[in-house]
Amino acid sequence: MVENIGATARAMMNCSLGDLRLVDPRDPWPLSNTLQERMDATSAGATDILKNTTLYPTTEAGVGDLNSVYALTARTRDMAKEMLTPRAAIAEIHAKIQAGEKIGLMFGPERTGLINEDLACAEKLIGIPANPEFSSFNLAQSVLIMGYEWFTTAQSRPSEAQSSRALNYGKTRPATKAEVFHLFEHLERELEEGGFFTSPEMKPAMTQNLRNAILRAELTEQEVRTWHGMITALAQGPKKPRNQHG
Amino acid sequence: MVENIGATARAMMNCSLGDLRLVDPRDPWPLSNTLQERMDATSAGATDILKNTTLYPTTEAGVGDLNSVYALTARTRDMAKEMLTPRAAIAEIHAKIQAGEKIGLMFGPERTGLINEDLACAEKLIGIPANPEFSSFNLAQSVLIMGYEWFTTAQSRPSEAQSSRALNYGKTRPATKAEVFHLFEHLERELEEGGFFTSPEMKPAMTQNLRNAILRAELTEQEVRTWHGMITALAQGPKKPRNQHG
Repeated sequence: MVENIGATARAMMNCSLGDLRLVDPRDPWPLSNTLQERMDATSAGATDILKNTTLYPTTEAGVGDLNSVYALTARTRDMAKEMLTPRAAIAEIHAKIQAGEKIGLMFGPERTGLINEDLACAEKLIGIPANPEFSSFNLAQSVLIMGYEWFTTAQSRPSEAQSSRALNYGKTRPATKAEVFHLFEHLERELEEGGFFTSPEMKPAMTQNLRNAILRAELTEQEVRTWHGMITALAQGPKKPRNQHG
Repeated sequence: MVENIGATARAMMNCSLGDLRLVDPRDPWPLSNTLQERMDATSAGATDILKNTTLYPTTEAGVGDLNSVYALTARTRDMAKEMLTPRAAIAEIHAKIQAGEKIGLMFGPERTGLINEDLACAEKLIGIPANPEFSSFNLAQSVLIMGYEWFTTAQSRPSEAQSSRALNYGKTRPATKAEVFHLFEHLERELEEGGFFTSPEMKPAMTQNLRNAILRAELTEQEVRTWHGMITALAQGPKKPRNQHG
């Protein structure tokens, strides 16, 4: 809803967050005049954010240039991903940004939240602590809480975060999401050819589990290249005796 | 505005805050049906809070039974009152409540904020850290930030560390080091056969880099088994055309 997008822009501007990306919004952009006015009204003047909003057809496209993504969700949905509080996540994110990484926060629409396919693009999950009887936050509320943590952390602890989670990257750099997605495709293509996905119904779950584990590794660009080489070597190597005789 | 009151009730319910008091609201209560519906819609179901809302003609009347009051304001307005961050204020408030006190948070209307006469009823002031270029929060935003601090402090002092870093393991468990080492051996054996390690001198460094990346994934026992299957599938799959003709 455009009101929710306007309120989100306001919360972002309150908290000095800059880059709003929308994936396949309900109402087609550019908006009609009526919708534009409703959005601008709830933004309370945060029009710079709205003007610079970018649109993407898919979640994958929206995160391609980032190094890692944290997804807001109320439930873990049995995903093998780390679930952090907003405060713990923001501390990590500050450290990564200071190390030169580009990080995204991913929020879902009001009623449905993020679907598993979206969550599969994220390295980690964030759960906002809430009354278990009434735990659903809307988009603008979630953005405000993350923005608030972002702003207060940015202000109050400049260097403590620095120490905590930054890898030593040497001459390489964290891989972009697009590079990692490309690695997934390579791996899954070879696994398909190798008969790894024994039943088609199981393939989506198996793929998702593999992707989750690899995302947790937060590969560098060099490692992604190495892994491509590794997959190729495995797939092109000499056939195994068992196979040759079987 | 009734929408702002509804959104406030939602934020209070999200954060387990209970007692909403209104001082001289713009629209006369009980509300007309239309206004009631607009308020209920933005409350997203937090109707218990709205039903139990109490009305007061003046600020003084509204805070009479409390032991102390903290007022939200963007500026100190040269008041000789202590100005706290939300986090510091909530820490104090928790301590006071544990000592049996009744404490109130006071919020102003959207455009004007609290006037000096209201602030005069408060012991201390709270300022929400914000972008100095865009620092105005609406009622529901301010309530959400205070509620979030309230809820996280109430809940997470003992368990924040606990909650933050644990994966959701479901039916599996973290792999043992021995299981992961065994996986390394399997992978490296197949890579060796596939001609991945082009120069023997480079092998130790390449192996170490691979191991580092996989260790960062902190695999589960189930994932280790899946990865064994994946390596086997890759290594035993049909030969690639390039290899067959090369």
